[in-house]
Amino acid sequence: MVQPLTNTFSEVDSPRVTIEFMPQNKKTRVPFGMSIFNAANWIGLPIDSTCGGQGTCGKCKVLVWGKGNPEINAADREFFSDSELLEGWRLSCRSLANQDLVCEVPTLLGNPKASLMGTDRHVIIEPNVHKIALQLQKPSLRDQRSDYTRIRDALIEKGFQVHISVQLLRQLPSILRKSEWKVTLVVVGQELVCVEPGDTTKHSYGLAFDIGTTTVVGILIDLNTGAVMAADSALNKQSVHGADVISRISHSMLEKDGIDQLNQAILSTLDSLIKKLLREAKVKAFSVYELVATGNATMLHLFLGLDPEPIGVTPFIPTIQDHLTVSAREIPLSIHPQAQVQLLPHIGAYVGADLTSGILATGLAQKEEVRLLVDVGTNGEIVLGSLDRTIATAAPAGPAFEGAQIQDGMRASAGAIETVKIVEDSVQLQVIGDVQPVGLCGSGLIDVVAELRLAGLLDSSGRLISSEEAKNRLSSALSQRIIQESDGKRSFVLAWPKETGRNRPLVLTQRDIRELQFAKAAIAGGIQILMKELNVKNQDLEEIYLAGSFGTYINAQNARIIGLVPPISIKRIKAVGNTASEGAKIALVSFRERQIAHSLPSVIEYHELSDRADFSDSFIDILKFPELETLELKLIS
Amino acid sequence: MVQPLTNTFSEVDSPRVTIEFMPQNKKTRVPFGMSIFNAANWIGLPIDSTCGGQGTCGKCKVLVWGKGNPEINAADREFFSDSELLEGWRLSCRSLANQDLVCEVPTLLGNPKASLMGTDRHVIIEPNVHKIALQLQKPSLRDQRSDYTRIRDALIEKGFQVHISVQLLRQLPSILRKSEWKVTLVVVGQELVCVEPGDTTKHSYGLAFDIGTTTVVGILIDLNTGAVMAADSALNKQSVHGADVISRISHSMLEKDGIDQLNQAILSTLDSLIKKLLREAKVKAFSVYELVATGNATMLHLFLGLDPEPIGVTPFIPTIQDHLTVSAREIPLSIHPQAQVQLLPHIGAYVGADLTSGILATGLAQKEEVRLLVDVGTNGEIVLGSLDRTIATAAPAGPAFEGAQIQDGMRASAGAIETVKIVEDSVQLQVIGDVQPVGLCGSGLIDVVAELRLAGLLDSSGRLISSEEAKNRLSSALSQRIIQESDGKRSFVLAWPKETGRNRPLVLTQRDIRELQFAKAAIAGGIQILMKELNVKNQDLEEIYLAGSFGTYINAQNARIIGLVPPISIKRIKAVGNTASEGAKIALVSFRERQIAHSLPSVIEYHELSDRADFSDSFIDILKFPELETLELKLIS
Repeated sequence: MVQPLTNTFSEVDSPRVTIEFMPQNKKTRVPFGMSIFNAANWIGLPIDSTCGGQGTCGKCKVLVWGKGNPEINAADREFFSDSELLEGWRLSCRSLANQDLVCEVPTLLGNPKASLMGTDRHVIIEPNVHKIALQLQKPSLRDQRSDYTRIRDALIEKGFQVHISVQLLRQLPSILRKSEWKVTLVVVGQELVCVEPGDTTKHSYGLAFDIGTTTVVGILIDLNTGAVMAADSALNKQSVHGADVISRISHSMLEKDGIDQLNQAILSTLDSLIKKLLREAKVKAFSVYELVATGNATMLHLFLGLDPEPIGVTPFIPTIQDHLTVSAREIPLSIHPQAQVQLLPHIGAYVGADLTSGILATGLAQKEEVRLLVDVGTNGEIVLGSLDRTIATAAPAGPAFEGAQIQDGMRASAGAIETVKIVEDSVQLQVIGDVQPVGLCGSGLIDVVAELRLAGLLDSSGRLISSEEAKNRLSSALSQRIIQESDGKRSFVLAWPKETGRNRPLVLTQRDIRELQFAKAAIAGGIQILMKELNVKNQDLEEIYLAGSFGTYINAQNARIIGLVPPISIKRIKAVGNTASEGAKIALVSFRERQIAHSLPSVIEYHELSDRADFSDSFIDILKFPELETLELKLIS
Repeated sequence: MVQPLTNTFSEVDSPRVTIEFMPQNKKTRVPFGMSIFNAANWIGLPIDSTCGGQGTCGKCKVLVWGKGNPEINAADREFFSDSELLEGWRLSCRSLANQDLVCEVPTLLGNPKASLMGTDRHVIIEPNVHKIALQLQKPSLRDQRSDYTRIRDALIEKGFQVHISVQLLRQLPSILRKSEWKVTLVVVGQELVCVEPGDTTKHSYGLAFDIGTTTVVGILIDLNTGAVMAADSALNKQSVHGADVISRISHSMLEKDGIDQLNQAILSTLDSLIKKLLREAKVKAFSVYELVATGNATMLHLFLGLDPEPIGVTPFIPTIQDHLTVSAREIPLSIHPQAQVQLLPHIGAYVGADLTSGILATGLAQKEEVRLLVDVGTNGEIVLGSLDRTIATAAPAGPAFEGAQIQDGMRASAGAIETVKIVEDSVQLQVIGDVQPVGLCGSGLIDVVAELRLAGLLDSSGRLISSEEAKNRLSSALSQRIIQESDGKRSFVLAWPKETGRNRPLVLTQRDIRELQFAKAAIAGGIQILMKELNVKNQDLEEIYLAGSFGTYINAQNARIIGLVPPISIKRIKAVGNTASEGAKIALVSFRERQIAHSLPSVIEYHELSDRADFSDSFIDILKFPELETLELKLIS
């Protein structure tokens, strides 16, 4: 039924090479052409570097053993003698892995500042923003170098090679002279973004943003320490134009200034949030030099004012998929006007940068064992793999998990039933905000269906049994909850009118159950196809990560019971929270991690499901719920 | 008296290496680290290339002989097998000359389109603007590459690697789909500046601008043919804020919005001129993809809105000296908004990009024999040298050559006496615009002083003889022209009141002669110091180029008589016209020539005269006029 996949992205077909690092005795397989420096970062070996892998500081020396000598390039010539080159010494950031090789790393980063971030990831705090305080030599008739050449020469000595904008050139003469040539140079990547009078090295900040369709999360980070200075979230102001990605795309197509409206809405959302974060942390806007943004392809397109229409219609094509650097001036945002805005790359039109940063935050593609990452939502994103090979797909789950198209469904806000338990003959509800129940959100929906299965009220085909059948098996308190609606369809009563304060009960209908079945089948089907493709069985799965804000609230046991995820031990199913914003934060504080994020789309194979006959076939089977006896519930609960 | 110079620019101290090209059997000495490709261009050997020396087309292959093998780099790996690399094959645009070497060039550019430009320079028409018409493959569910990746892949196949701006990304989806994926990609350097529907390769234009302090010259070029479509000049609208560079700098310092006013004035000058050129040639603004600008450092600083103050005060420091690429959007100008504006580099604060392009136009630094280039003006720029070594300086001549500080002086406009001849006892004047004489411009000033020397009315110290002395030697018609002013100072009458229509004669005063002496001594002194530095004698000078609009009108014989230039054969003194705009034009039509222009500041040594004691010493001697018998006037006239 499930056929082998062909990959739709040509650039992924690159072979892998093995690199062995000594004396650390660590080995990795990386895509052909990755730098040795990044390959080491890939497995957590931080080779020393101050320039951020630009080939200009000369610190990331390695000795390549045996025949696998990479080509010598201009940067190597600058830092090694002929005999050293002959021996095999190279700058690891300039040397590309074009064949299997073994190399010796004499200097790992000494005493790195590090933090635990994401899913137990040990992240070294080495941002892409560098502040260098200097006393420049004053010009004289014997040293008439231009202002820019003077700065450039000083930076080359410190291991940086930079570009400069006209905007900064306009300010340069006055800053240099007023400060009597004592300045702090702010280098972001390879751009000199700012020259500040005096020594301002203490003040260096960055922002990480996860631009979600519903919620935008912003985090302000002290780049000297990696510490979070402030974090907050806000409703995406685009929400007035539709709840999900598809309705936003429709808005952009149907309204004359639709793209512009959506662009302005998201910029305004970010700007309010930025101002709030800065106020809270007492940080000045011009001390923020970089912003890393993640989000799905549609959100990042609208953030840049790009037309999302081709993402919304077959064959689902983004304008740009690569990571991109844009000056804050072009956006614009209330941070340093020359700051750089870094957008993480997408893996596919519907496996966006939010998943790229999710994979970074979990380290899924860098670990030996096979893991599964699932972000459940209107669009379910699924990533499966390990260091060896990782594949991803998007499954169109529809809006059921968001509470839409469910008769008494609602979003996870005040009044939403978020957990449901059937204990003996009573139904126990947990409601958001300690109020009377108003409706059922996604996690409650999964709970009630799973509990109905366990209580024997729902068969594996998804049929709610009649109250007569129920009476024979169950307490009357429970069987009474199965009611017949006027159209003859059955429903299960979650709360009676006296509990809700309204004139009708709050129910789960047979139709709601079917909606849930379609939603979970989309995701379970996607998982099944990826597992088949990698030839991974349930027992091979080391862990399942449930990601996204929704993932945090899903009861893992119940996710197994409804067949949303493969039935592995519940201890190995983890809610990993908002991995998107966590990944953006990691990419902000660590240039090494950011380079990993940038290389992920070329490493991860994206599979489009929408034209796959086998997906539709298996879909029918996967609509069913698993038989309870196959789940070994006692063993694992 | 004249001491050896020390060079004030550290980057010039680089050693040179010798490169020999076979089978052409040509040799050149170039600065250490120049690419083999550029070294070949330097001596007029155009190695084949379509990507413009970016290392992406693989056409510029050379075989390096013997031990001088340059390092192998990533681009080489792409185009050569291991055994070819071992033999010595390299891409010449990526291979730097780090030692003397011999290399074989299998393919020179076949049938290059070329034009004679500048001083008999054979320029190959190969602009930095490339238009590539393509039928792109439509996306499908099996080929979901993003729009940008699709274009990038197509360009890589054609040998181009590019960047893209957010502005262009915003237009991309609609252009591609409306044109049914049949488009023309416009690549300028390494930037994808534009994607046009259909095949528009026929329409490709560029502008060359010489931004002079007084006059701005603009030339519109068809980049497919190198043909001039329109050329025109306009008064620099900054002129209302002062006639020369120093008064413009003063204005920028004294007025609150001075920099902005001057910036707006020059942008408005350019914009009017651009619109006029486009109208005349019937070319659309959005078909102009590149503008090359040259000019002195102050003018190019004001063009970018940079503060010129530090250029105006000791130690005379520009903000930026390097060549610079700016998007037309940043300026802005009425050409394609994504067009690139290329500013040529300066050699020093007072030997600006106008001289860089002058050196390019004359080929002075690429020829075997020693030549002298002099641009006479308020600031006299002097360049002396050859392929072997070239040095430059600026001499503060003052405004005499512009007609300022001369009693009856004026600019070269209607009514100005532009040539003067004393034939027997009459004074013959040639006046601009066929009107009555109003005043004396620079070329007339040089003429009258030279003629007075030849007529024996002016001694070598610069003293005008008395009418009594004159009477004894000359006709009364001439001697009567020497009059005594009320202050006792002598003057020579150029035109009597009846010839001028005003109530007093038009005269050259003794004081005017002194002013001229100071002006010519500044330039002659500069020339003397450079000749001493290069150990060049008069007889070693192959040619003297008199450049600039003023240079065109100077009588070369008379320039020798007053001692402005060394006394070599008059046949070898050439008025070469506006070499600045000619050089900008050459840099616009030929990326090879532009790369030469970019390397000139690192090759040409700039010498600051203002702190040199020997300059002041020699100045006194050089104030004198040469003795006529030393000039061999008969032999050379």
